[in-house]
Amino acid sequence: MPAFRLLALAALSAMPALAADTPTTPSTVVAAAPAAAWRAIPADELLVVTIEGGRRVVIQLAPGFAPRHVANIRALAKAHWWDGTSINRVQDNYVVQWGDATEKKPLPSGLSPTSEADYVLPIANRRLAVTPASSPDAYAPSTGYVGGWPVAMDGEAAWLPHCYGYVGVGRNMAPDAGTGAELYAVIGQAPRQLDRNIAVVGRVIDGMAYLSSLPRGSGELGFYTAQEHRVPILSVRLASELPVSERPRFEVMDAASASFADYLRLRANRKDDFYIRAAGGVDLCNAPVPIRAAP
Amino acid sequence: MPAFRLLALAALSAMPALAADTPTTPSTVVAAAPAAAWRAIPADELLVVTIEGGRRVVIQLAPGFAPRHVANIRALAKAHWWDGTSINRVQDNYVVQWGDATEKKPLPSGLSPTSEADYVLPIANRRLAVTPASSPDAYAPSTGYVGGWPVAMDGEAAWLPHCYGYVGVGRNMAPDAGTGAELYAVIGQAPRQLDRNIAVVGRVIDGMAYLSSLPRGSGELGFYTAQEHRVPILSVRLASELPVSERPRFEVMDAASASFADYLRLRANRKDDFYIRAAGGVDLCNAPVPIRAAP
Repeated sequence: MPAFRLLALAALSAMPALAADTPTTPSTVVAAAPAAAWRAIPADELLVVTIEGGRRVVIQLAPGFAPRHVANIRALAKAHWWDGTSINRVQDNYVVQWGDATEKKPLPSGLSPTSEADYVLPIANRRLAVTPASSPDAYAPSTGYVGGWPVAMDGEAAWLPHCYGYVGVGRNMAPDAGTGAELYAVIGQAPRQLDRNIAVVGRVIDGMAYLSSLPRGSGELGFYTAQEHRVPILSVRLASELPVSERPRFEVMDAASASFADYLRLRANRKDDFYIRAAGGVDLCNAPVPIRAAP
Repeated sequence: MPAFRLLALAALSAMPALAADTPTTPSTVVAAAPAAAWRAIPADELLVVTIEGGRRVVIQLAPGFAPRHVANIRALAKAHWWDGTSINRVQDNYVVQWGDATEKKPLPSGLSPTSEADYVLPIANRRLAVTPASSPDAYAPSTGYVGGWPVAMDGEAAWLPHCYGYVGVGRNMAPDAGTGAELYAVIGQAPRQLDRNIAVVGRVIDGMAYLSSLPRGSGELGFYTAQEHRVPILSVRLASELPVSERPRFEVMDAASASFADYLRLRANRKDDFYIRAAGGVDLCNAPVPIRAAP
């Protein structure tokens, strides 16, 4: 909260002594969630991006929502295709984008074809376990959480929203749907108008600040205009390719858990010493599914 | 849009030749808006913040919504109170905050008292010219635009939302409502839960990237932990205090204009060579009122 530092620190240090009186907040719910509320993220769903200076960004992939694009991303990582490429675009309040600046690097063979049909998950004849979100949404008839991911839905399909930190697949003009070689992460207000117009394939779950604090590009659409401004990508690997000791390990909160229900309710109804007026609602992109480093 | 650079540039350069076939977009509507659709922003509503390196950030104040806090901010600027203070906190996907890191600098005399009543604009017995927004909102019964500002509303009051780039007044625990000496700007997904819990006093209209790309602080709540990490503020002035030749001059689109109606409709219904599926709605914080440098 944007309180003065002194007060914020005082509140923190006073917490143990005042436990009985401390209001329950989204953070305290997450901290108190039992082990059963958490699910380990498989190593082949974690993409480890190492950029200049050894800074590590970890992306959780969403194969359940974008299977073809994720298959391609895994193939590109296994081929070490991104090694030596770069971050080429940083547009304020929009996206950080990376890939091959030359646009000439040959792709590995065997990538899956993709199409506009891959932007959504058809829900006819499927049983999706949806934890509903109760707040209205400007972009979809309904929203909720499925398997640790926020989703927007209509009667026919579910799709991942373009929230802060979410990763999508750059493409050329429609009907091109992108291979997965050109990726971007959202660094501002959720550009939800891109939903269903682009494949969302995952989200940054660690190291986001390394991307969001990069200098903005001065060219059209935030592209860097000189080679020396581009940020080198040293390597991109699936965690499952790394030695076990080097693998990042994360867990995501089960959206069907009681802890998540408490978290969501409190996200929509902050009321404590600082919050005097509860909102009574929360935007889908403002209630991120909790993720933690595996204990 | 997150298209490849080559295609994006090709589309731009082809525009003149293809004018008849070029889809109308929010950008083209803004570019074509007549002079009558624009309103000059008064010089005493522009706060010019100069930070280390001579980087200039311009904030538009909202005296119509937060008169007491804005009166204080004007008094602080005229007293040169912020000169020599610093940016002390950068929390990713949340806020950049500045003020007196020592929390001991004496305030100028004569500041207005503020209270929680100042967080909203009561609308009983007032005639507000509201351009309604048509998309549902998770945080308020209705939304719209008043005098060049987005507003959220219930039956009793209107208030400025915490959108990207919006500036609020840091405060201690309630019922303290802050003087205006400690300010922050939003650098991520709109933290609308802060609406009606804090005074929103304006928005960054130029130089936002100088704030949003700052290194994130490693301390609690994103505070910088060492003096050398803090970003010095060289000066803060109202534009009206500056020599005429040095004043920034900006214009804001009239929310009651036909151009704004077109812009808002297109923001909610992108459909062109790139957008294959129109959203049919747009979040209040994703349709910022257009602002331009005065021609």
